[in-house]
Amino acid sequence: MKSLVYHGPGKKALDDRPVPEITVPTDAVLRVTKTTICGTDLHILKGDVPTCDPGRILGHEGVGVVEKAGSGVTAFRPGDHVLISCISACGKCEYCRKGMYSHCTTGGWILGNRIDGTQAEYVRIPYADTSLYKIPAGADEEALVMLSDILPTGFECGVLNGKVQPGNMVAIVGAGPIGLAALLTAQFYSPAGIIMIDLDENRLQVSQRLGATATVNSGDGKAVDAVMRLTGGYGVDTAIEAVGIPATFNLCEGIVAPGGTIANVGVHGTKVDLHLERLWSHNITITTRLVDTVTTPLLLKTVQSGKIDPRRLITHHFTLDRILDAYDTFGRAASTQALKVIIEGAARI
Amino acid sequence: MKSLVYHGPGKKALDDRPVPEITVPTDAVLRVTKTTICGTDLHILKGDVPTCDPGRILGHEGVGVVEKAGSGVTAFRPGDHVLISCISACGKCEYCRKGMYSHCTTGGWILGNRIDGTQAEYVRIPYADTSLYKIPAGADEEALVMLSDILPTGFECGVLNGKVQPGNMVAIVGAGPIGLAALLTAQFYSPAGIIMIDLDENRLQVSQRLGATATVNSGDGKAVDAVMRLTGGYGVDTAIEAVGIPATFNLCEGIVAPGGTIANVGVHGTKVDLHLERLWSHNITITTRLVDTVTTPLLLKTVQSGKIDPRRLITHHFTLDRILDAYDTFGRAASTQALKVIIEGAARI
Amino acid sequence: MKSLVYHGPGKKALDDRPVPEITVPTDAVLRVTKTTICGTDLHILKGDVPTCDPGRILGHEGVGVVEKAGSGVTAFRPGDHVLISCISACGKCEYCRKGMYSHCTTGGWILGNRIDGTQAEYVRIPYADTSLYKIPAGADEEALVMLSDILPTGFECGVLNGKVQPGNMVAIVGAGPIGLAALLTAQFYSPAGIIMIDLDENRLQVSQRLGATATVNSGDGKAVDAVMRLTGGYGVDTAIEAVGIPATFNLCEGIVAPGGTIANVGVHGTKVDLHLERLWSHNITITTRLVDTVTTPLLLKTVQSGKIDPRRLITHHFTLDRILDAYDTFGRAASTQALKVIIEGAARI
Amino acid sequence: MKSLVYHGPGKKALDDRPVPEITVPTDAVLRVTKTTICGTDLHILKGDVPTCDPGRILGHEGVGVVEKAGSGVTAFRPGDHVLISCISACGKCEYCRKGMYSHCTTGGWILGNRIDGTQAEYVRIPYADTSLYKIPAGADEEALVMLSDILPTGFECGVLNGKVQPGNMVAIVGAGPIGLAALLTAQFYSPAGIIMIDLDENRLQVSQRLGATATVNSGDGKAVDAVMRLTGGYGVDTAIEAVGIPATFNLCEGIVAPGGTIANVGVHGTKVDLHLERLWSHNITITTRLVDTVTTPLLLKTVQSGKIDPRRLITHHFTLDRILDAYDTFGRAASTQALKVIIEGAARI
Repeated sequence: MKSLVYHGPGKKALDDRPVPEITVPTDAVLRVTKTTICGTDLHILKGDVPTCDPGRILGHEGVGVVEKAGSGVTAFRPGDHVLISCISACGKCEYCRKGMYSHCTTGGWILGNRIDGTQAEYVRIPYADTSLYKIPAGADEEALVMLSDILPTGFECGVLNGKVQPGNMVAIVGAGPIGLAALLTAQFYSPAGIIMIDLDENRLQVSQRLGATATVNSGDGKAVDAVMRLTGGYGVDTAIEAVGIPATFNLCEGIVAPGGTIANVGVHGTKVDLHLERLWSHNITITTRLVDTVTTPLLLKTVQSGKIDPRRLITHHFTLDRILDAYDTFGRAASTQALKVIIEGAARI
Repeated sequence: MKSLVYHGPGKKALDDRPVPEITVPTDAVLRVTKTTICGTDLHILKGDVPTCDPGRILGHEGVGVVEKAGSGVTAFRPGDHVLISCISACGKCEYCRKGMYSHCTTGGWILGNRIDGTQAEYVRIPYADTSLYKIPAGADEEALVMLSDILPTGFECGVLNGKVQPGNMVAIVGAGPIGLAALLTAQFYSPAGIIMIDLDENRLQVSQRLGATATVNSGDGKAVDAVMRLTGGYGVDTAIEAVGIPATFNLCEGIVAPGGTIANVGVHGTKVDLHLERLWSHNITITTRLVDTVTTPLLLKTVQSGKIDPRRLITHHFTLDRILDAYDTFGRAASTQALKVIIEGAARI
Repeated sequence: MKSLVYHGPGKKALDDRPVPEITVPTDAVLRVTKTTICGTDLHILKGDVPTCDPGRILGHEGVGVVEKAGSGVTAFRPGDHVLISCISACGKCEYCRKGMYSHCTTGGWILGNRIDGTQAEYVRIPYADTSLYKIPAGADEEALVMLSDILPTGFECGVLNGKVQPGNMVAIVGAGPIGLAALLTAQFYSPAGIIMIDLDENRLQVSQRLGATATVNSGDGKAVDAVMRLTGGYGVDTAIEAVGIPATFNLCEGIVAPGGTIANVGVHGTKVDLHLERLWSHNITITTRLVDTVTTPLLLKTVQSGKIDPRRLITHHFTLDRILDAYDTFGRAASTQALKVIIEGAARI
Repeated sequence: MKSLVYHGPGKKALDDRPVPEITVPTDAVLRVTKTTICGTDLHILKGDVPTCDPGRILGHEGVGVVEKAGSGVTAFRPGDHVLISCISACGKCEYCRKGMYSHCTTGGWILGNRIDGTQAEYVRIPYADTSLYKIPAGADEEALVMLSDILPTGFECGVLNGKVQPGNMVAIVGAGPIGLAALLTAQFYSPAGIIMIDLDENRLQVSQRLGATATVNSGDGKAVDAVMRLTGGYGVDTAIEAVGIPATFNLCEGIVAPGGTIANVGVHGTKVDLHLERLWSHNITITTRLVDTVTTPLLLKTVQSGKIDPRRLITHHFTLDRILDAYDTFGRAASTQALKVIIEGAARI
């Protein structure tokens, strides 16, 4: 089958690989109908993710159809239309029992990382019963691809951890796909204002269409002042960090109001400065989180009831045999204005 | 000054009464610019509220302008444009310190009940610093009259106590002004659906305009079945009781899903049956609450930021000298289709 | 194998029955080393539990040793020493994913009810991976028998739902085994006082030994007055109902302070009066719950660290072949002063 | 009156100063019966607290008797025996209304900092109604001196923010008075274990007497390893930082388990490194807080009901005229083994 394979730092190819098989009774094998590319896939390709060995099929997002289900799978049958979670959860370990699937002792983020992923015609999904979600009849497949990772990440790590509440002021630093997912899902809670901060004017314009009440281009180094002006000098109740570098985290430290929360979503490669000499007395909370995807059922309901339209994050479409072009487009987002790109599976075999 | 005075069961009059004075340093005297009539005022007129003695000026809602401020008032000055809370809070007692202003040991709901109220040209407000809220420049006065009582009641007693959450199913039993206030504020949390239940077709139509996703006329005695059909047999996560009689509370018991909440808002005059022989094992929560108005600052922000438009609850306007007509219109709501009626204060003296 | 079998209302016998087998891959079969009798078993014997058919082996509590594990069981192996949860949880359904195992769509309370239970030499446990807990080396088996049902029931339905907090006042109505389990686990949160209320003087004396700060014999019909005196006229922050009849629920309604919680634990056979004509404005919360046993890992840690000694609830010991005597002793608790009776399994076969 | 006065970095004296007067109607003047010295007072004396001007009477803890009450004070009368909160709260501003008294816009930590404090015969207390607490008859004055600052600080900033729960593992870095206050109040929640970490063997021994289940001397630089061994490799659910330097904060980062919380209590003078390159995916929470003293009523109840004995933190006693000796003893804690020192007021004038 056609598969996008990581061949070590800087190298990838569309290879032919055997269709995966059931290996343990709790596995399912799916035909992938739609997948997408994540910023994390670009990190892997840079060589930044040591857990991902060369030879790995990438991809941890997508929807598909169950082709085979192991004997231990009780919730799904061949032919079922399903959403793939980026997190594999055994459902049994201490972490899974607490709803912290991201730290499942034998699962977590393994798809397209420690095991082969979804950017292929077929994929094997471990712990199928607790890692797949049935797609309701009539649901929009493309919208649901956004529910594999990006929506729960923005929502759980940013919005829920950030305790967004009606009437509050929110700032989101980073208007990439994850920041925009936080922007969309923050609106579930009717904050008084959502300020989007980024360097890219196009993304700031997109933010306004998606519900931002104000935008700040941080290119001039005066974003803290701008946010203070927009909040009457108080700062924001919730600052969501959706970039992953010291400068953006520091910006969050500068704009969070006393009693507020910094919800970190960004994947950081280096330590940051925490200014406790100022913040020790500010009654703030800082949270970190790898998405648990515990809110997938909730998000499915919000999509089904029309409270959110995740398709607004999709800018491009490709077929699987053109996935290298998709990577190129996604990788040059500043010039292509790409947010999320949909990769359509091969026609039914 | 002109004042709407309760003269015992069934009797009221527009009397002339002296303008109130500051009695203790924490008082303020306001000129009332707008007030309204509450269902509770009708209860008083029926003789159902023993704490309210004949001779009392009614009314516990409104906005106004500070005319005089006692020497202990530090947050307001004459000329300040303010919102009156229906709850007077000393800010010092154990209950106030917990945010349970409704049970303030020397305050609570006293306006238009134990002391003279707002349906007059002027009103004395005890504990002014902690019972009034500054009205932002440019705010709509009529919208804010809804924040004295009806919005915080629907929000605190119904929506917050009912733990309305994104993706959840909500039912509101009773589409009167309070039920509709719950309907408006429930949408702060993006539930998947809100089912309004009432006997009055006009109010159900209003509900649809205000955001209900389904309506059920309970006149046929089959409302439980209807709600079960609308929820795929599960029942609702949140049932808000906004009427105050045994039949409507029982309806809530019949439609609440396992794990769900019944949030009582209605003022009950008699006990109800609690079917613990069925519900003991259903993991449900039942809450009661007299509004605390702790969310008034939050609600002000949602109005100012356009997340909610409380004017949609206003159907009629009267001047203070026509308040008897206003009572008549409000009292015959089924035929007049009245929801909230605005009473405009006399022109500036 | 020897088994205590229900033969219809009023009838039970110690019968010989075949040793159970693995029926689906997620099952385990255990040799029961210790079990006990629950008040619910007496309800079944009265014919009050329609889901339990004649011919059923009773019992839903106990510890044992894994004899056989189905091919889908990954967390346990033959020889493992395990605690049996009274609730069987599939770990996959929507309720289990929310931690509401009591409402597992294919499990819940089925042991000794819809399927054969633990009052036998062997028992089949469905969903073994998510319904058994490994017993730490050196742990006291008898203490852990209390963790199958009684401790999590008192803790989850009473203490957690009742929001017991440091400095608060708690009343527990009913000093039977469940009420005493609530008494023990309430002390995890250091309330200022715990008032135990019962008709049985012996149980009230036991309560004092187990940590009650005051006791009230409700035989004189003046328990409300007594509790009000003990709480300076305020009432209690938490009232735990651990009996299951209208009189005791009404008592809770009479003693709960404004802002307080009534946590129902009792199994009710009939409706109760809810005095909303008084309580609608008291800002109270009422909860119901069938135990979910989600706190079993937490409780295991508190037993292991010596924060609680559940053996204090055990009054009698019997071997399995004398289980009919055990039922007799437990059934006449008023005269035998029985609380929990331990049934020791047959010697190793 | 005798007063301990700060005269600039390194300088203090026991001066004679006029007895304070009521300046605004919400003030009270107290005769101080007992006070104490805080580590913060030593910081002031080093010149580290720029808000505290030379000439200031130090001290923000104590108990006393109301001598005069302003005309706006309604909760206290001359002769009342009261506990002084280290935080002055107006009770009216947005922060006070949220229970964040530490950020009261006209109060907060001002006593012995921006206004004269309690290390004198008399002290003026602003916002008396909301900054003093009545001492119950028969209460131990010395115990209650610990409730001015140290107990609420350890409890609110450490234990509550750290979400200490039954069965959890807690580490407290720093066994000074504040760390020990956290140790005492953490036991309200029955954690499975509390590991105290310090360099001072005497303080570690005190910790064991006060309830620590393990102690680690971090002098060898291997504290992380030691904690990991004590927690089976998991780390702790709650790490409380009670020192205020980068090394101790980093230690907390090293020992917090996935899903755990670092509750900062220490007053930091410099930034720290936050290792987001490791922690971004660990689902942790970090909190900071200046004590709000919102839990003072709760703590009073726990002292009155004997759940905690704060006198165990007191090591020395002095009279006010020997306060310079008291400072000397407290300042050389390593050799004097001082924890909290009680300063007794002058005999009644």
